[in-house]
Amino acid sequence: MSNHINPRFQKGLKKRKSLSSKQILKDLFNQDKVALSQSITMIESEQPRHQNIVDELITACLPKSGNSLRIGITGVPGVGKSTFIESFGKHLISLGKNVAVLAVDPSSSISKGSILGDKTRMQALVTENNAFIRPTASGSSLGGVARKTRESIILCEAAGYDVILVETVGVGQSETAVHSMTDFFLLLKLAGAGDQLQGIKRGIIEMADAILINKADGENLRAAQKAKMEFQKALHLYPEKESTWSPKVKCISALNEKGIVRVWEMMMEYKKITSSNGYFKKNRFNQQKFWLFDSLNQKLKNNFYQNPKLKLELEQKLKQIEGQKMSSFRAADELYNYYLKGLKAK
Amino acid sequence: MSNHINPRFQKGLKKRKSLSSKQILKDLFNQDKVALSQSITMIESEQPRHQNIVDELITACLPKSGNSLRIGITGVPGVGKSTFIESFGKHLISLGKNVAVLAVDPSSSISKGSILGDKTRMQALVTENNAFIRPTASGSSLGGVARKTRESIILCEAAGYDVILVETVGVGQSETAVHSMTDFFLLLKLAGAGDQLQGIKRGIIEMADAILINKADGENLRAAQKAKMEFQKALHLYPEKESTWSPKVKCISALNEKGIVRVWEMMMEYKKITSSNGYFKKNRFNQQKFWLFDSLNQKLKNNFYQNPKLKLELEQKLKQIEGQKMSSFRAADELYNYYLKGLKAK
Repeated sequence: MSNHINPRFQKGLKKRKSLSSKQILKDLFNQDKVALSQSITMIESEQPRHQNIVDELITACLPKSGNSLRIGITGVPGVGKSTFIESFGKHLISLGKNVAVLAVDPSSSISKGSILGDKTRMQALVTENNAFIRPTASGSSLGGVARKTRESIILCEAAGYDVILVETVGVGQSETAVHSMTDFFLLLKLAGAGDQLQGIKRGIIEMADAILINKADGENLRAAQKAKMEFQKALHLYPEKESTWSPKVKCISALNEKGIVRVWEMMMEYKKITSSNGYFKKNRFNQQKFWLFDSLNQKLKNNFYQNPKLKLELEQKLKQIEGQKMSSFRAADELYNYYLKGLKAK
Repeated sequence: MSNHINPRFQKGLKKRKSLSSKQILKDLFNQDKVALSQSITMIESEQPRHQNIVDELITACLPKSGNSLRIGITGVPGVGKSTFIESFGKHLISLGKNVAVLAVDPSSSISKGSILGDKTRMQALVTENNAFIRPTASGSSLGGVARKTRESIILCEAAGYDVILVETVGVGQSETAVHSMTDFFLLLKLAGAGDQLQGIKRGIIEMADAILINKADGENLRAAQKAKMEFQKALHLYPEKESTWSPKVKCISALNEKGIVRVWEMMMEYKKITSSNGYFKKNRFNQQKFWLFDSLNQKLKNNFYQNPKLKLELEQKLKQIEGQKMSSFRAADELYNYYLKGLKAK
């Protein structure tokens, strides 16, 4: 995935090549969408020369960042995430907010698609002056995509966006990543017969600050209300969250713009409660620590597991373990000693 | 925690000091409880001279290991874990089984207590010839305790124990560790008013293969049956497990030995299903891989985080992150480069 730049932005980037990061920053702080786009394009680029500029940009943006509500949104394909984001975004703009929409979807690098790439999905929002919509960051690893998205959030905040929506599809580890970079985590669901949680990865329910049952209109209304009750019962069984917030379940119809106002009111209530009990700030710092350690641990592991000699050695140990000739712990001891020897021989 | 040996076993160990690991193994394969006890004592010892013997013992026991059903048991204090283990153990012995009881409780190193230390709790089982009860392994880290317990399981199996019960209290990460070393995971609960999952860590419900509602007798019976229904509903909401097993909820009275027979029948059904669909064996190998990688990653992290210079550097970076002067990712990059430089300078 090296040197990957979204072709749509490549042109703009070339035009600006001679511009200094100072000029980009000046424009960005003036809420210039083009400057913001180009900055994010550089974040997505894996060319070392762009990385240096990115470091400068991030460092300059950091003191101006943090003043937004970051909202994670997940749900299986077809649940109506983009319709919800459109309705919700339009409502926020009517309240005078600046809304940025980002996405985390590591799988898009395989499908070559992008969950926000199809801009026709959000036509009303795209044309809004106060909305910034950015297709998903691409990348081969979730860690890489998460970093790009985290950095994009910082730039968006520095550019004056005060509500950041981070969308993800309900697959893989991406929800955990999005949950670890947002303040409020929304799960979108449809009412279905029987197993309400079917198709949702384990653990997601526990992460949700609210479950929205979408398409609660017409013939679906009754099933949606039944699903709401079931979810409420299920959520009631979980122990209290550290935030002290009890997750809410709401029926909405994103298409008919029903229930959208209450969703935002609920988030304002969440922010009020968690700001006054200190959780909001504490959680943000914990997230920063999480990404520091996550990033470090990833680097430490890569240094080990991407070493071809160690890969070979590891394969052999796994065979010995499977054949009950060696315990997992003894194998770990031996592999680690082999690794240390290699480091010292360098 | 270095050189820690349970004083009760120290004496026996000294007596045998001159014995070779060959003699210990011979006795152990003859189901000699003293030899088994002494071997586990050496596992718990952190003296290098014992570690060499342990390596020999484990390697010799591995080919004879694996032929048991490993059952994890968790629940908050007071739920009746020891009473259950006693009733259940006695039933298993009546079926001709050899039962070993181990425990994972890293916190005991702080409280200086041991969840199985109070042998009066299992008087009936202690006196059984076909039962082996071992107080919890002590240690300052969960990783260390988990390793000792995993290795103890191997020795118990080689000594002919065909049901291994691994008890843990419902705190910290110990359930995850026990879940990752057992075939079947039991959660013991009491019927209570209102929030049934209160006091149980997030995620434990998802790990459980069965929930037993204990003390379902006398006045409690009705509440227990109500709790059973609530848990069944809650479990129904989760997606299917990879094992294809649907977790069961049962009311029991360990004290009155009610429902115990059905618990074992349920486990036999589980073993039958997961053996025929291949999950049982696959899960065991996945657990071995898990412990290999867990152990390796722990070593890699320790090499980094226990370095005093890096600790100092890390503290400084955290301050810069908190002050919005540096992003988590940039801090990780810089710390990692600092680490690599240090390694090369060695």
